[in-house]
Amino acid sequence: MQLQKRHILIVHAHPEPTSVTHQLAQTAADALSSQGHHVTETDLYAMGWKAVLDNDDFPQRKNSERLSFVEESGHAFAHGCQTADVIAEQEKLRAADAVILVFPLWWFSMPAIMKGWIDRVWAFGLAYGYQGAGNTYRYGEGGFAGKRALLCVSVGGPQEDYAPRGINGPLEQLLFPITHGTLFFPGMSVLPTFATYGAAHMDAATMRDLSERWRRHVEQLFDHAPIAFRPQNGGDYPDRHVLADHVAPGQSGIAAHIAHR
Amino acid sequence: MQLQKRHILIVHAHPEPTSVTHQLAQTAADALSSQGHHVTETDLYAMGWKAVLDNDDFPQRKNSERLSFVEESGHAFAHGCQTADVIAEQEKLRAADAVILVFPLWWFSMPAIMKGWIDRVWAFGLAYGYQGAGNTYRYGEGGFAGKRALLCVSVGGPQEDYAPRGINGPLEQLLFPITHGTLFFPGMSVLPTFATYGAAHMDAATMRDLSERWRRHVEQLFDHAPIAFRPQNGGDYPDRHVLADHVAPGQSGIAAHIAHR
Repeated sequence: MQLQKRHILIVHAHPEPTSVTHQLAQTAADALSSQGHHVTETDLYAMGWKAVLDNDDFPQRKNSERLSFVEESGHAFAHGCQTADVIAEQEKLRAADAVILVFPLWWFSMPAIMKGWIDRVWAFGLAYGYQGAGNTYRYGEGGFAGKRALLCVSVGGPQEDYAPRGINGPLEQLLFPITHGTLFFPGMSVLPTFATYGAAHMDAATMRDLSERWRRHVEQLFDHAPIAFRPQNGGDYPDRHVLADHVAPGQSGIAAHIAHR
Repeated sequence: MQLQKRHILIVHAHPEPTSVTHQLAQTAADALSSQGHHVTETDLYAMGWKAVLDNDDFPQRKNSERLSFVEESGHAFAHGCQTADVIAEQEKLRAADAVILVFPLWWFSMPAIMKGWIDRVWAFGLAYGYQGAGNTYRYGEGGFAGKRALLCVSVGGPQEDYAPRGINGPLEQLLFPITHGTLFFPGMSVLPTFATYGAAHMDAATMRDLSERWRRHVEQLFDHAPIAFRPQNGGDYPDRHVLADHVAPGQSGIAAHIAHR
């Protein structure tokens, strides 16, 4: 069977080379390279990624009086005056057919260093405010349309705490600000999260099984069905803001934004 | 009427002195000081807060071979070998009767610099793994029990996008990983979020009205009823992991963890 060669960006966030995160990032890189794909990595800790979006992100300020991040991000993106590290990551993203984010779950979200990768790289004009058209293109359309995204999350606690009625809340709902709000927003097709639990204490045999399961999962990166988030411009949001009455009638909250196939 | 003097910690995350975030942080400090309370501030950008939890957080590693954050955090907290900046924030928290986090919503969560404040300050033994007893004390009990917490969030977009059926999802659900998973987890009583929308373009009159509304809100900091998150050890989670069948029967997802009064 002929496999189409694709580009995949793997972004990961753990400084310890023997961590579950590092091992899973490596497994994904190996699996996809073995399939003939082209793999690029962003190892945030190893590269000393600057996590904090601040004034230094805008060496040529549009408004030197008052720092507005939206305004300066749009200006810097449009006029080619972003910092070199941000431009490099955007180029990796541009080239990518799929992006895999591998991280440990810290306080039910990503580590600060990865949040700072989003905060800095997701520029106005690219990831939001696409084509200078406000919110015209978002949720299914935008600067990252056509790309797949997959989260690979290491969770310290036990799986039952994330069960449908588990005390932490279901993992996929906790990650909704990332999957829906960060990845689907600029147009990516987001796959269901791959999670591993009990990652704080994992023996060698369990780690081998996990790596094998992850390898098989990632080999199907371009076959898995994405989460059925409703696209903004697909008819479900006639005013681009609120669900039409006939869509998921009577439902409210984040779950209403996922279509049932 | 005699007002009890309390300690309030205000943590905020925006480098621009004229930003909505800064102005609201200042309004809160003024209002609470005027009431006779003792206010402490953590201005994350001004202090150049180190956002990234890494090896430098553990000057005296327990295990120099392999970096486990849980293990090293527990060791450093228990043995007084945390870094000075982390210790200082923990002391502010210890003294505080209430904590107010003021931040702009970036990608439906807090800016990386504030996430890094959580990642670094929320130590094992204090905010999780309390008293070396695993998950025995969490969600309503733990190292921050007895304190109130309040988020004050500036949102760039319009309120309708965060309505019960708004395209982004309801704000309070998007913030659940913070309110429930980060603040209630170590024992804080979390108040409903104070949010302002359209913060990207706010004229002077609107800002004045907002400040006034916020001032009145914050003056009642110790009167507002907290979100009715279910405590782990209050009977709703008999095994400490999953809701009992008779609690919110048939419901699943994050909303099931809020009791209806």
